[in-house]
Amino acid sequence: MTPLDEAIDAIRPIDARAIAEARAHQDRLTKPRGSLGVLEDVAVQLSGIAGVCPPPMPVPAALAIFAADHGVHAQGVSPWPQEVTAQMVANFTAGGAVANAFAAQAGVSVTVVDVGVAADLPPAPGLVSRKVAYGTADLSQGPAMTPDQAAEALAVGVRTARDLVAAGNRCLITGDMGIANTTASAALVCAFAGREPAGVTGRGTGIDDETHLRKIEVVRRALRVNGIPEAGAVQEGRDAALRALAAVGGLEHAAIAGFVLGGAAARVPVVLDGVIAGSAALVAAALAPDAVGHCVAGHRSAEPGHAAALTHLGLRPLVDLELRLGEGTGGLLAHPLVSAAVRVMHDVATFDSAGVADKDG
Amino acid sequence: MTPLDEAIDAIRPIDARAIAEARAHQDRLTKPRGSLGVLEDVAVQLSGIAGVCPPPMPVPAALAIFAADHGVHAQGVSPWPQEVTAQMVANFTAGGAVANAFAAQAGVSVTVVDVGVAADLPPAPGLVSRKVAYGTADLSQGPAMTPDQAAEALAVGVRTARDLVAAGNRCLITGDMGIANTTASAALVCAFAGREPAGVTGRGTGIDDETHLRKIEVVRRALRVNGIPEAGAVQEGRDAALRALAAVGGLEHAAIAGFVLGGAAARVPVVLDGVIAGSAALVAAALAPDAVGHCVAGHRSAEPGHAAALTHLGLRPLVDLELRLGEGTGGLLAHPLVSAAVRVMHDVATFDSAGVADKDG
Repeated sequence: MTPLDEAIDAIRPIDARAIAEARAHQDRLTKPRGSLGVLEDVAVQLSGIAGVCPPPMPVPAALAIFAADHGVHAQGVSPWPQEVTAQMVANFTAGGAVANAFAAQAGVSVTVVDVGVAADLPPAPGLVSRKVAYGTADLSQGPAMTPDQAAEALAVGVRTARDLVAAGNRCLITGDMGIANTTASAALVCAFAGREPAGVTGRGTGIDDETHLRKIEVVRRALRVNGIPEAGAVQEGRDAALRALAAVGGLEHAAIAGFVLGGAAARVPVVLDGVIAGSAALVAAALAPDAVGHCVAGHRSAEPGHAAALTHLGLRPLVDLELRLGEGTGGLLAHPLVSAAVRVMHDVATFDSAGVADKDG
Repeated sequence: MTPLDEAIDAIRPIDARAIAEARAHQDRLTKPRGSLGVLEDVAVQLSGIAGVCPPPMPVPAALAIFAADHGVHAQGVSPWPQEVTAQMVANFTAGGAVANAFAAQAGVSVTVVDVGVAADLPPAPGLVSRKVAYGTADLSQGPAMTPDQAAEALAVGVRTARDLVAAGNRCLITGDMGIANTTASAALVCAFAGREPAGVTGRGTGIDDETHLRKIEVVRRALRVNGIPEAGAVQEGRDAALRALAAVGGLEHAAIAGFVLGGAAARVPVVLDGVIAGSAALVAAALAPDAVGHCVAGHRSAEPGHAAALTHLGLRPLVDLELRLGEGTGGLLAHPLVSAAVRVMHDVATFDSAGVADKDG
């Protein structure tokens, strides 16, 4: 079996007994029942993932930033030169990007994985070279990747998750870098969540009206030339999902899908960042539906395709502050919230132990 | 001059030059302009508060939980016995409440201030006794406080802020404990934001339909017996604001209003928790409109009056996860987000320094 097959086969639904135990525990704590809102659900979910209540604290946590380039950049879908992908990789390894600042704040380690940057990158601390190709082909002209490339990039993600968990990490956070990668994300959301290009293609890191219209047309063409019906959701099933991923995805999307699967297989929570992660999680869900139970939506980005992906996945984002940066920044902001939710399960007194009268008592 | 007068006189608009400098600095950092959404506004605001760019990190940070009881509890507006206020104070000082868990997670100190609990509390580490009265009078029968009590409770808040800043804290977070205090909050929102009782009176920590209708009627009666026109906003002006606060507020609401004023006078950011803080901030804003520029809305609670208060104040909440607990929990969850926003200003490379090409470059 390939590492991808192994990961998919290892993924189980989250544990029903631990979930029930966690719900009951929440109701004994010295707070009105349900008063922690969404954070109670997060703590219960993490109990289900770990199969134990209370679940372990989600630390140490590791961010993996998967970097790759995109042939579709040639269509003028981004105002940024393609070289910025490699330049930002250097910025990450030098510690100068926003992801580094947020990671330092949250106490999260940063690993950068070159899964497909269109340049040879000099070795640097924290940079892992797993290059599958020098960027994808132009998805508006034909398949972005060969099936083998897509499978290889998925395996890079699985392996990265496995290595980080083996190193002791108890929470994984997804990150991405790739100029033009919101175009591939929009195409994936169309393919996997059954949406129209106009509804899910956004302005990425900031484009004008003309570029935005061109980007929507590029997504439409990508679906057409690759034989993916507009607004036709990819049926679940490994082969159809792999074909659609190879056709309109990016190497970092494939790697993040693998990272989600690898995390789910290892029973650790995976905090998703923005639209790149959301569209990659759609792929992971098509390959292994039970992977979604291991995902926490870190935030909702300003990109419209992200909301569509989260709705399709049934995930509620923890942070909603109009970020549109990627890199893992939204996932990193959510990590302290996840930690706080779990800490409640460990630290808070019960009505009995604290001598606090219960409601209507 | 009283400490309250001194605080009000010391409050200035946040610094326009530092704000402009912070905006310009944001635009040089290696990220698409505006891509950190609301967090860019937070970092700019904190520059304005401190009068310097970048602003100091908001650490150390201190949570002050103001605890008090409410005569209106006799009207059956809460399913919890009044004794829970004192029991929860003991839970806070023993470290067993959710606020303690969140504070430990965020590295924030906890101070509990007894400004009006209806019981004699035994001394405990972290408990400061500043009792103004053994709870308020029933606001649905007449004024909750005498004007002197309201002024004294305001001064307790000012003093608490001043002491915490003098001890080296660079960020203040508001907290509260007081069974039935969402009833007073709803009345304050009606009085200061010009809202109808039915629109802003919520279910607090969880009440049934019958109790909810009774609570709305109690708020309506409180406004009537105290001569506050329904849906009539209190005009700005110290005397009218103090009268309305004394009539329908709580001792912890008054103390939190003073805490906001004390923080603003000391030019440190004040992170507001939920509806108790929101309604208290309305009072602070009526006393010193420039205090609002020093406030960060930590979260939006499930309580409808909170959204109304935030709208009136023009504040956007950072966390929105349906919490309805109080204690400062929403403010504590927001603190890492505020820190992350400021950290960007300190740590992130500029396009020039990192050798990253700018957009359209």
